[in-house]
Amino acid sequence: MKPISEKSAPPEVKAVFDDIKATRNIKSVNNFWKYLANEPRMLRHTWDSLKSIMGPGELDPKTKELVYLAVSITNNCEYCMASHGAAARAKGATDAQINELYAVVGLANMTNRLANAYQVPVDPQFRQKD
Amino acid sequence: MKPISEKSAPPEVKAVFDDIKATRNIKSVNNFWKYLANEPRMLRHTWDSLKSIMGPGELDPKTKELVYLAVSITNNCEYCMASHGAAARAKGATDAQINELYAVVGLANMTNRLANAYQVPVDPQFRQKD
Amino acid sequence: MKPISEKSAPPEVKAVFDDIKATRNIKSVNNFWKYLANEPRMLRHTWDSLKSIMGPGELDPKTKELVYLAVSITNNCEYCMASHGAAARAKGATDAQINELYAVVGLANMTNRLANAYQVPVDPQFRQKD
Amino acid sequence: MKPISEKSAPPEVKAVFDDIKATRNIKSVNNFWKYLANEPRMLRHTWDSLKSIMGPGELDPKTKELVYLAVSITNNCEYCMASHGAAARAKGATDAQINELYAVVGLANMTNRLANAYQVPVDPQFRQKD
Amino acid sequence: MKPISEKSAPPEVKAVFDDIKATRNIKSVNNFWKYLANEPRMLRHTWDSLKSIMGPGELDPKTKELVYLAVSITNNCEYCMASHGAAARAKGATDAQINELYAVVGLANMTNRLANAYQVPVDPQFRQKD
Amino acid sequence: MKPISEKSAPPEVKAVFDDIKATRNIKSVNNFWKYLANEPRMLRHTWDSLKSIMGPGELDPKTKELVYLAVSITNNCEYCMASHGAAARAKGATDAQINELYAVVGLANMTNRLANAYQVPVDPQFRQKD
Repeated sequence: MKPISEKSAPPEVKAVFDDIKATRNIKSVNNFWKYLANEPRMLRHTWDSLKSIMGPGELDPKTKELVYLAVSITNNCEYCMASHGAAARAKGATDAQINELYAVVGLANMTNRLANAYQVPVDPQFRQKD
Repeated sequence: MKPISEKSAPPEVKAVFDDIKATRNIKSVNNFWKYLANEPRMLRHTWDSLKSIMGPGELDPKTKELVYLAVSITNNCEYCMASHGAAARAKGATDAQINELYAVVGLANMTNRLANAYQVPVDPQFRQKD
Repeated sequence: MKPISEKSAPPEVKAVFDDIKATRNIKSVNNFWKYLANEPRMLRHTWDSLKSIMGPGELDPKTKELVYLAVSITNNCEYCMASHGAAARAKGATDAQINELYAVVGLANMTNRLANAYQVPVDPQFRQKD
Repeated sequence: MKPISEKSAPPEVKAVFDDIKATRNIKSVNNFWKYLANEPRMLRHTWDSLKSIMGPGELDPKTKELVYLAVSITNNCEYCMASHGAAARAKGATDAQINELYAVVGLANMTNRLANAYQVPVDPQFRQKD
Repeated sequence: MKPISEKSAPPEVKAVFDDIKATRNIKSVNNFWKYLANEPRMLRHTWDSLKSIMGPGELDPKTKELVYLAVSITNNCEYCMASHGAAARAKGATDAQINELYAVVGLANMTNRLANAYQVPVDPQFRQKD
Repeated sequence: MKPISEKSAPPEVKAVFDDIKATRNIKSVNNFWKYLANEPRMLRHTWDSLKSIMGPGELDPKTKELVYLAVSITNNCEYCMASHGAAARAKGATDAQINELYAVVGLANMTNRLANAYQVPVDPQFRQKD
């Protein structure tokens, strides 16, 4: 599939592109959105979800970007690591923090498999009470 | 494999168990450590790494637990979701924050595949400068 | 490992190559088979399985290629996305259908993690009856 | 997290529950939605996306459920396998078709790793032309 | 899907069941084969492949079972961990070896993500020479 | 992140680099370690763990490298496949053995999903006795 340029975008795509630019105060949308525009319904749903969940909420924006980055590393999504790494930095993450995040992600992937391998039963205190 | 109880633990295992209890100010170690004790070298390495990286550092402890939880959800590790969900709450995460985290993890797993599917090229501005 | 060219292929590899070309009515085999030919037994088993299961059966060929593509996206296998994307198109999938498929795959990866995160119990009506 | 019952649902959750029941012509919503209701924004976004993409579009509804099922098997999401297996059957998938789908999913996961292991370069004919 | 019992198996399934029992010198087939028998073609292909590749070859049988177990842990397949853990022991793996294997699998899953996160370029000496 | 060269490495990093070179009898460290050096604590922990577990133990070094390679293929980590493929060869793995390993990894990824799809219950004989 090819990216849909801002110029050639049909109205329902242009509306999303304009909202992305206005919300993020940027002059052009990233490649991700230009490719996703090949399926205008999904472009709309994905942007609506991200705008809502990654916007003001319960966790601060930097934490949410770090979580996004951690998932993207685990799934080995190169584009997502690049874009959410940049976003995390833009929201205040330092190099030292990103390095520590990598360490946490590495350890989590290790202990996930150790817990699987030993089929460790969940401790009663970790179960939520009614 | 069976868990190694604190009573029957050999000295090198007991030393790690004691350090875990002292560091975390708890009275008994979780199942994870009792199973991992079947391989005393790996028990030692895993604890040393976690103690160091999950302890004081660049990111606050709650953020690190949230990142750990996000990876564990992505990998579908039931034990790890339970233990790190509990740890995140113990370090101050609220229900509303955990719910928002779930949403972020869901979205990240979705956009990871959309970026893969479209083979989106990385935007130049996401590349770090020399 | 290097690919095994059709010219230098030993007889048991050549026999599989010839069957692939005859079955698919193509003039040369794809890179996948040339690399897999480094393990002639596995070349034979993989081709026999694919020829049988991807050939006439219960689901139409296009549907099976779309399923193959969906798995390959989830696993982020670039070669497999390229080859099964091409195969799906050759069997009639349109650009609009491929775009919708990407959306479904994205959503499935999202709700898979949401179901994991909440540890949602299976509804009784989804259990098959004896 | 606990499920949000239809009775105790706040208005913005009840509105989604009502739309799910009306759209699908069912009397009560599945567990998935009751758990997701803990994060009402994500409940709304997930339902809006699924209603749109899994509804009338480019691929027939049965094919989309089969794709959903294939991804859920690859990710080992037990709840999703149960719910989308049931949905595929409700939309006309036979036992013989589901069995064949399992075979395709198994083969795709196998050849995904073989292509990875051999680092097979993409054949030029699989590249889309400009 | 329900398992196909040895008694009710159709001839093409019974033939595979008999070959499994004769090859492995066991009195009844495992659950895996009884479920897979719902798709007789895939039963045949899977058994043929496993019989060939897991039988005499280049690597000794114990090593192959350990590799199988390592993949199953990484993918969190409970059935596969149980069956291939038992097979590895039957072929001579000791508890101490299995424990060390778990450690290796954990470390590999950790360093896989660290290499991803840092996008480490492959060292020239790791590239195979022509 | 940029790699930390051996020349510019701070003392705690240089100490690890020197130990890697002495232990492996090599003249310079691989890229992996140079990148990981951005987080000196994690560099230390990762090296300590690998030195210990991948060194003399219960399984022979070649088997451990093959297990490492199998996990890396399953996770599609290109760097790790290259480095542990080279390490396996350096420890005696032949081309024919590596090819067979690829076949085993492919089959394991296939049967992992078939076992998931059919939700195969674990046979009693695979459960370890108390």
